[in-house]
Amino acid sequence: MLKKIPSIISPELIKILMEMGHGDEIVLADGNFPSASIGQRVVRLDGHGGPEILMAILKLFPLDPYVESPVILMQTTESDKDLKPEIWQEYRDIVTSFSKREIKFNYLERFKFYQRARKAYAVVASSETSLYANLILKKGVIAKEPV
Amino acid sequence: MLKKIPSIISPELIKILMEMGHGDEIVLADGNFPSASIGQRVVRLDGHGGPEILMAILKLFPLDPYVESPVILMQTTESDKDLKPEIWQEYRDIVTSFSKREIKFNYLERFKFYQRARKAYAVVASSETSLYANLILKKGVIAKEPV
Amino acid sequence: MLKKIPSIISPELIKILMEMGHGDEIVLADGNFPSASIGQRVVRLDGHGGPEILMAILKLFPLDPYVESPVILMQTTESDKDLKPEIWQEYRDIVTSFSKREIKFNYLERFKFYQRARKAYAVVASSETSLYANLILKKGVIAKEPV
Amino acid sequence: MLKKIPSIISPELIKILMEMGHGDEIVLADGNFPSASIGQRVVRLDGHGGPEILMAILKLFPLDPYVESPVILMQTTESDKDLKPEIWQEYRDIVTSFSKREIKFNYLERFKFYQRARKAYAVVASSETSLYANLILKKGVIAKEPV
Amino acid sequence: MLKKIPSIISPELIKILMEMGHGDEIVLADGNFPSASIGQRVVRLDGHGGPEILMAILKLFPLDPYVESPVILMQTTESDKDLKPEIWQEYRDIVTSFSKREIKFNYLERFKFYQRARKAYAVVASSETSLYANLILKKGVIAKEPV
Amino acid sequence: MLKKIPSIISPELIKILMEMGHGDEIVLADGNFPSASIGQRVVRLDGHGGPEILMAILKLFPLDPYVESPVILMQTTESDKDLKPEIWQEYRDIVTSFSKREIKFNYLERFKFYQRARKAYAVVASSETSLYANLILKKGVIAKEPV
Amino acid sequence: MLKKIPSIISPELIKILMEMGHGDEIVLADGNFPSASIGQRVVRLDGHGGPEILMAILKLFPLDPYVESPVILMQTTESDKDLKPEIWQEYRDIVTSFSKREIKFNYLERFKFYQRARKAYAVVASSETSLYANLILKKGVIAKEPV
Amino acid sequence: MLKKIPSIISPELIKILMEMGHGDEIVLADGNFPSASIGQRVVRLDGHGGPEILMAILKLFPLDPYVESPVILMQTTESDKDLKPEIWQEYRDIVTSFSKREIKFNYLERFKFYQRARKAYAVVASSETSLYANLILKKGVIAKEPV
Amino acid sequence: MLKKIPSIISPELIKILMEMGHGDEIVLADGNFPSASIGQRVVRLDGHGGPEILMAILKLFPLDPYVESPVILMQTTESDKDLKPEIWQEYRDIVTSFSKREIKFNYLERFKFYQRARKAYAVVASSETSLYANLILKKGVIAKEPV
Amino acid sequence: MLKKIPSIISPELIKILMEMGHGDEIVLADGNFPSASIGQRVVRLDGHGGPEILMAILKLFPLDPYVESPVILMQTTESDKDLKPEIWQEYRDIVTSFSKREIKFNYLERFKFYQRARKAYAVVASSETSLYANLILKKGVIAKEPV
Repeated sequence: MLKKIPSIISPELIKILMEMGHGDEIVLADGNFPSASIGQRVVRLDGHGGPEILMAILKLFPLDPYVESPVILMQTTESDKDLKPEIWQEYRDIVTSFSKREIKFNYLERFKFYQRARKAYAVVASSETSLYANLILKKGVIAKEPV
Repeated sequence: MLKKIPSIISPELIKILMEMGHGDEIVLADGNFPSASIGQRVVRLDGHGGPEILMAILKLFPLDPYVESPVILMQTTESDKDLKPEIWQEYRDIVTSFSKREIKFNYLERFKFYQRARKAYAVVASSETSLYANLILKKGVIAKEPV
Repeated sequence: MLKKIPSIISPELIKILMEMGHGDEIVLADGNFPSASIGQRVVRLDGHGGPEILMAILKLFPLDPYVESPVILMQTTESDKDLKPEIWQEYRDIVTSFSKREIKFNYLERFKFYQRARKAYAVVASSETSLYANLILKKGVIAKEPV
Repeated sequence: MLKKIPSIISPELIKILMEMGHGDEIVLADGNFPSASIGQRVVRLDGHGGPEILMAILKLFPLDPYVESPVILMQTTESDKDLKPEIWQEYRDIVTSFSKREIKFNYLERFKFYQRARKAYAVVASSETSLYANLILKKGVIAKEPV
Repeated sequence: MLKKIPSIISPELIKILMEMGHGDEIVLADGNFPSASIGQRVVRLDGHGGPEILMAILKLFPLDPYVESPVILMQTTESDKDLKPEIWQEYRDIVTSFSKREIKFNYLERFKFYQRARKAYAVVASSETSLYANLILKKGVIAKEPV
Repeated sequence: MLKKIPSIISPELIKILMEMGHGDEIVLADGNFPSASIGQRVVRLDGHGGPEILMAILKLFPLDPYVESPVILMQTTESDKDLKPEIWQEYRDIVTSFSKREIKFNYLERFKFYQRARKAYAVVASSETSLYANLILKKGVIAKEPV
Repeated sequence: MLKKIPSIISPELIKILMEMGHGDEIVLADGNFPSASIGQRVVRLDGHGGPEILMAILKLFPLDPYVESPVILMQTTESDKDLKPEIWQEYRDIVTSFSKREIKFNYLERFKFYQRARKAYAVVASSETSLYANLILKKGVIAKEPV
Repeated sequence: MLKKIPSIISPELIKILMEMGHGDEIVLADGNFPSASIGQRVVRLDGHGGPEILMAILKLFPLDPYVESPVILMQTTESDKDLKPEIWQEYRDIVTSFSKREIKFNYLERFKFYQRARKAYAVVASSETSLYANLILKKGVIAKEPV
Repeated sequence: MLKKIPSIISPELIKILMEMGHGDEIVLADGNFPSASIGQRVVRLDGHGGPEILMAILKLFPLDPYVESPVILMQTTESDKDLKPEIWQEYRDIVTSFSKREIKFNYLERFKFYQRARKAYAVVASSETSLYANLILKKGVIAKEPV
Repeated sequence: MLKKIPSIISPELIKILMEMGHGDEIVLADGNFPSASIGQRVVRLDGHGGPEILMAILKLFPLDPYVESPVILMQTTESDKDLKPEIWQEYRDIVTSFSKREIKFNYLERFKFYQRARKAYAVVASSETSLYANLILKKGVIAKEPV
């Protein structure tokens, strides 16, 4: 543990977040996401839900201001097309609370989401049990910190 | 790079600082210290001096309040016994600026310092060229961070 | 995730719990415990407290009935001798709820606790922020499961 | 060994089953299947037949309800076209006993089965000596377990 | 699988049995034995009992004729001193069936057995649920096989 | 060494032969074959000729009855087109002695042979000095062995 | 540290610079560059700016005289098209000070720069916070040093 | 060091030369060749020139008699087209001294040479400072050595 | 394979023989020697007898002239005390044929031989089936070879 | 290759020399020294003599001024007691040429030299064929280099 770092962030995860650069993406995966078969690097945060992890990550880096949608959700599939996942609004509220500008979320069909996730720098595997609770975040630019 | 983390702290170093627990020690080694032969884990910060690294580390963890001297310097050897390394005062000023109580520095003879350093969790190898600019820091207790 | 396994148990942790045999010990470490420098195998469960992990582990294996005290706590040190950690009672209640017989807890002085922990099969590193919230558990005997 | 886990499930296998997510596939291979040359991850369960392994796996995860056929068998080849493997009925009975809905089995020609198996998350290599006793299982969605 | 090799013998196990030389020892461990913490090399045969493994191993190598007792059992502990493990007779019958001379079994107290097991070339971890079903076997001399 | 296993078979080789399944191929390479650059797994049997290795392998597994030619030789090249390698007849005699049906050998041009060998499960590198003494063997089906 | 080698050059970096041959490229990346996801080999020099690293590298090898532009900058993107990065002039002055001939800088669009960087022998990750401060250097030919 | 082996041949290099088979190629690279980025396996012989290494290699294996040109040089580039590298004649004299038949050298344009070198079994990185001193050698057939 | 190197010498073995220096020892082990549990490095030469390997090794290095007995045999044990292993004379004849001076063989009791073998640089595991056919060889000094 | 670095220094060796700190030792071993069995890290410089390596190393670091004898030679053994190795004078001349003060050489008996060498940071294995040509060098203090 360290001062100023949320305790939910593991040593391995903070290393990965710090290694990521402008434009690199990280997947915040729910508990049923095939993280191990898809992720290039997988950090497990078993027992945690999506929103608390999202909040901790956004304390550490800003979203990419160079693209319209630095956040991507997985679309509901045909058989679930009437589902309105409540967690989506929770995610939107958290993102909004960290941003001065309005952030537009984008949507990707399930298998296209998988393709995109395969290229992400890392996958954070949560135990979130809400359906369609997967999120891709694109990292922005960090300004100079004083030594 | 991440928000709130000094840029001199590498991803590997923050991971190590976070893995350390109460009572674990880290060596801040000068450029002539035999870091590679002594350290269990070595993080190199080539090109940097000791004080800037010390300052960055103390932003991230407190020193151990359970011992009298959570900071150890290497004593000057017999042949250098009249040397008064100016960097020692610089180190003291930095430590003081982070602490509410007075921190007493301890001293270890060169080869005893090596023995102690061998047991430390990690060695940070700087390029500090001042003589006798090696320091052992003992990590304290981190209180709960909000998620 | 799997049926019947608490979601806080990671794949790595269940593998380790299953590999352990009769008499093997596991350390449930709080967030300031020097897990990385002491543990032979370390499983991190960042962001979780001690009691929820203890409960999940005891769903998976029984404590050793061949010794008087299959649970060991770390004694408060001299400077904290008047401290009565509330979490100890929480731990006792959980252990009692899983046992038909009375389980006696044992205590070890801080550095003896470290020595014992070094020999344990694994350390589970929680983010528990209560002080003296470290626990050593000795695994018992598993009877035959039907195929 | 652990409480509630069939003893035929090895530590490595339960880790793999837990890492798998919705839509990931696992191959239950007979003793003559080229498991080592085809599998991305291979767990050997030498000396065991297919049905006992199938039963143990289905105790741990449900099949995928999002596809019509979450179970795939290898078709008999031209030269064995009159063969009616008795083990197929055994497999069907086990799958049925775990499911509320009817599960349709699908069939793939031998070399197409190999292609599909190459993409599976893992192969469990049994010593089943019945012919055509290979099976691909697609994992479903796990609902929340209480901590 | 190969001709003439019992299917319960895994590829890893036959490699290990073949690598062993005259005087090397192998532990046949029951399901509660702390195999992973004690064994230099561990081969898991989850789901199998002790006798079927013993039989398969003795088909592949003879016991050491240079010592009086090439087979060692773990003594019952003080609290189980009235226990007469039935599996011991089963083990004796199997050993006898492979030997022309009479084989004397030796006994070691639980923690001495652990010490001896630590030096063994390998541990075969079974799921045998009988108590005190652990065995140490000392390999003998193999005579020339025709090419 | 083990009972019933020819001593020319190394522990690594028997492990590989056992891991192979129905349809997997192994290359028996002569001493000038580029084994190290072509083989996915290479087992060296320096100092041995091809026929003695072929004989030992066929004691352990049958050839594939599902294809017409489970044995492939490398064709002589244009410049050696009048060469009639005597070792081919030796190979044929050994294969015949292990088979109830007639086995047809197939031939592949040198570079096509290399392509096929790259996909084989393993290459056994002999020191056979006869020219064109390379062979690809396709493993058949093993029937149940009694435990 | 060694005589004549700038202290900012780490042991790992000098090894990499020495391994590079004529025509090999190295990326000098700013602090927001996605070094870890793009680089084949990544050397981190956290806490350092671009110009001091450029100067140190050019003390150790000459630029490639066989191509017109042995130095490549990343073009400003559409949204930053009016930006005139001051650091570019700093880089030009340093390069000029090491060269007898005039060195022409080349420019690559952001994503083409990434593609080129993926093929580079290594990426040096600085903490330079100026925007568009990334540089690709092509190594020239080293003449004989006296033993 | 061993009897009959030139001392310039390192243990790693002789292992590689011995592993190579008929038709495998090795690159003898000069000091400016990008050996580390191109070679599948790289053996460094720092401080040595090309001719002494060529001589040592040809003492150990013959060139391939099945192709017209078992030796390939890198062509001079357009800008160096008038260069007549003196070392080429040195190389030719050495090759001739080891051969009963005349060996024709082939030439490849710089980037085609690189492509060919990428497929070679190994690259020997010398410190030869002559320009265009790179060579590809194709290994021939070794006849039987007495045991 | 290489010119002048006996084909029984594998690439790995020649590398090891070359790495050995003056005074380093190598064990030539028979087929029942516990090579895998004792050797620091093990090279297997399955299927070969001791004398042919001894002959090949002595072609490559001389025995140590600085000690009285550069060759050590394993003494027969008490129960085999009347055994006169014929292979000892074979070994002596081979050693004599390579030496100008008389070489005295030394003898070590079985378990002392094991202790000595543990410190040897490598063990060559043959399939020699003669009893007491184990040998320790001490390498001598190699004089300069011409480049 | 790099500017100002002698070409005999390999990338691996310069990395090691740079990692060494004040008081660390490096062994310059002759061709018969048991480098591989003794060295913690071994850098081979096959084909080179001792003096040219010594000269290259001393260009890169100074000897330790804190001890009387920063250079240690191996004493001639009893049987070679009349030997006066000429290379010793060569070594002395090189050391003297790099030093302003007089450097006293120390001597260690052969097996004590081995013990000391085991603790050295690295061994450089040359092919020097002079007898008793082994040297231990203790690194001194590097003063600041300008960036």
